[in-house]
Amino acid sequence: MRKFMIEKPDEALRPAIQEKIDNLNKPKGSLGRLESLAMQVCLIQQTLSPSLAHPCHLLLGGDHGIEREGVSLSPREVTWQQMINFTRGGGGVNMLCRQHGFHLRIVDVGVDYELSAVPGIINRKIALGTRNFLFEPAMTPDEFDQAIGVGVELVDECEAEGCRVLCIGEMGIGNTSPSSLWMHLLCDIPLSRCVGAGSGIDAEGVRHKYDVLQRSCQRFLTAHKTYGPEDVAREFGGYEMVAAVGAMLRAAEWRMVVLVDGFIMSAAALVACRLCPDAQKYMIFGHSGDESGHRLMLDAMGAQPLLNLGLRLGEGTGALCAFPILDSAVRMMNEMNNFSHACITKYF
Amino acid sequence: MRKFMIEKPDEALRPAIQEKIDNLNKPKGSLGRLESLAMQVCLIQQTLSPSLAHPCHLLLGGDHGIEREGVSLSPREVTWQQMINFTRGGGGVNMLCRQHGFHLRIVDVGVDYELSAVPGIINRKIALGTRNFLFEPAMTPDEFDQAIGVGVELVDECEAEGCRVLCIGEMGIGNTSPSSLWMHLLCDIPLSRCVGAGSGIDAEGVRHKYDVLQRSCQRFLTAHKTYGPEDVAREFGGYEMVAAVGAMLRAAEWRMVVLVDGFIMSAAALVACRLCPDAQKYMIFGHSGDESGHRLMLDAMGAQPLLNLGLRLGEGTGALCAFPILDSAVRMMNEMNNFSHACITKYF
Repeated sequence: MRKFMIEKPDEALRPAIQEKIDNLNKPKGSLGRLESLAMQVCLIQQTLSPSLAHPCHLLLGGDHGIEREGVSLSPREVTWQQMINFTRGGGGVNMLCRQHGFHLRIVDVGVDYELSAVPGIINRKIALGTRNFLFEPAMTPDEFDQAIGVGVELVDECEAEGCRVLCIGEMGIGNTSPSSLWMHLLCDIPLSRCVGAGSGIDAEGVRHKYDVLQRSCQRFLTAHKTYGPEDVAREFGGYEMVAAVGAMLRAAEWRMVVLVDGFIMSAAALVACRLCPDAQKYMIFGHSGDESGHRLMLDAMGAQPLLNLGLRLGEGTGALCAFPILDSAVRMMNEMNNFSHACITKYF
Repeated sequence: MRKFMIEKPDEALRPAIQEKIDNLNKPKGSLGRLESLAMQVCLIQQTLSPSLAHPCHLLLGGDHGIEREGVSLSPREVTWQQMINFTRGGGGVNMLCRQHGFHLRIVDVGVDYELSAVPGIINRKIALGTRNFLFEPAMTPDEFDQAIGVGVELVDECEAEGCRVLCIGEMGIGNTSPSSLWMHLLCDIPLSRCVGAGSGIDAEGVRHKYDVLQRSCQRFLTAHKTYGPEDVAREFGGYEMVAAVGAMLRAAEWRMVVLVDGFIMSAAALVACRLCPDAQKYMIFGHSGDESGHRLMLDAMGAQPLLNLGLRLGEGTGALCAFPILDSAVRMMNEMNNFSHACITKYF
């Protein structure tokens, strides 16, 4: 895999940032999370006047061999149908990108349908879906490197346009299954607590999903006595998820702010941070979804999501909903007056 | 007091709204709180295509006699200093109004300073601060009616401009004290659980504040064997808080969506709903602050705030931060495609 050289943000600026925050005309600490977010973004950008220039959203699509085992309520064709729908502007991700001024890239990383002629879809297809990881690895080492590369290349394009804040979402029927396995194997949390209802299966469906994932995991563990995050990601896929890992790591190299979405993108963030721990300094977790286990995974990472609105749509919708809060934090640094300038008695 | 004729939103439209929501191209319920917010706004506006036209924010300022008892860390002059600062655009409320496109009205309802010549401050001053409720009622019945009238008149102006969503914030050093008493007397929650740190007093300060409020409450209860929400609001004030009650009730009469801020504005919402229970159908609670007791008060009202960002600045900042989520809910109804139109297999 490509090597990522992620620099830890220099902490030397912290006291100056804190002093600026504490002298804004408000009781100390009274803007709560806005203040800690402002600190994080200022450290990332090494400035007292941060900017969220040219927000970009990557919508990465891919299909999953494991879907053939009936682990998802939604049929596989919904992946390509939704990809086309996104090009027409009618999806949840579209309205949120419009609302918050995000430049949306819709990218086919591994959808099981011919989409290369569809205007508005960037064709980076690696294969027509991953292999079924109940029986074999979801992708080859070469495909894994390709998927990482897709993420890197997309982020380089965003960077060239001036992007300072990146959001990533996914479309891939069945992709809570690999996410649960990534979480289980990398956080050492019992599989039963990592498996949830996905797009809405019932209790019987969850039991079946658990059984399929448990057998898949056994097959992997029989073949691998030791393993790292790269092995886990490659074994279970999917292409869109590995591309997200590559995108997150490349964004951190570029010192972008990375807004992390719900369960599946948190799993991608988990792999990214296990590969390069300093990447987490660049991440802001947008939303804690309803998917069972998401909160446990966030806790394992020490991540505190901004929102909890019960979203479970994916596409990056949870992260996009959190963007205005990040924007408020940045505006606080740039627009709020300070005590001496505003002639206000400093009251603490 | 003026009589408010608040109509309960007609429920007949509910099934049609739900059907529209369920046919948007997403798994059923997968947009969580956005879906329940959309339902509420559609019922309020009696439409399947709601609108948040011309958002308005009322920033109501007033001083409090009880501040003389040392219940607040911040000195009284901060109220007028901040009122002037708001006219210059440098406060927390200003940046959030700019960010979310709110028309801001800065209104002096009872600030203890001559502000009538300050451009940008609407002069509706009732008195130079309320009386000290440790010794006497904060305001007279006539002043109470005036304060309600100020809120009504301001909302009428907003309505004439086409406002469909109203947010209200406050500036008034000391106003967590009356809020605690409103909550204690109207929710029947022990006073000790209603008293918090306000703008940042320490444990000793909280004990002193509790003692002052406890004695104030005793004086009131000795004089009143029975009492209603109007008595409680009048006894403890303040002018800006009663004006907020009037504004909320008038906004509900006009079928506006009302975004409720943190502890103090939740206390105003509490009084409004005790006066006219149907007013709550028009309210969306934006933020659960850190002020001890706020969560208890919200629970007593059955209110579920959208955000919890640890804000405790007031000014309406918590409610304003929640606005984009409400906006997303409305966009969902107007911009998302449905299954048949998008040619997607309906997957549930």
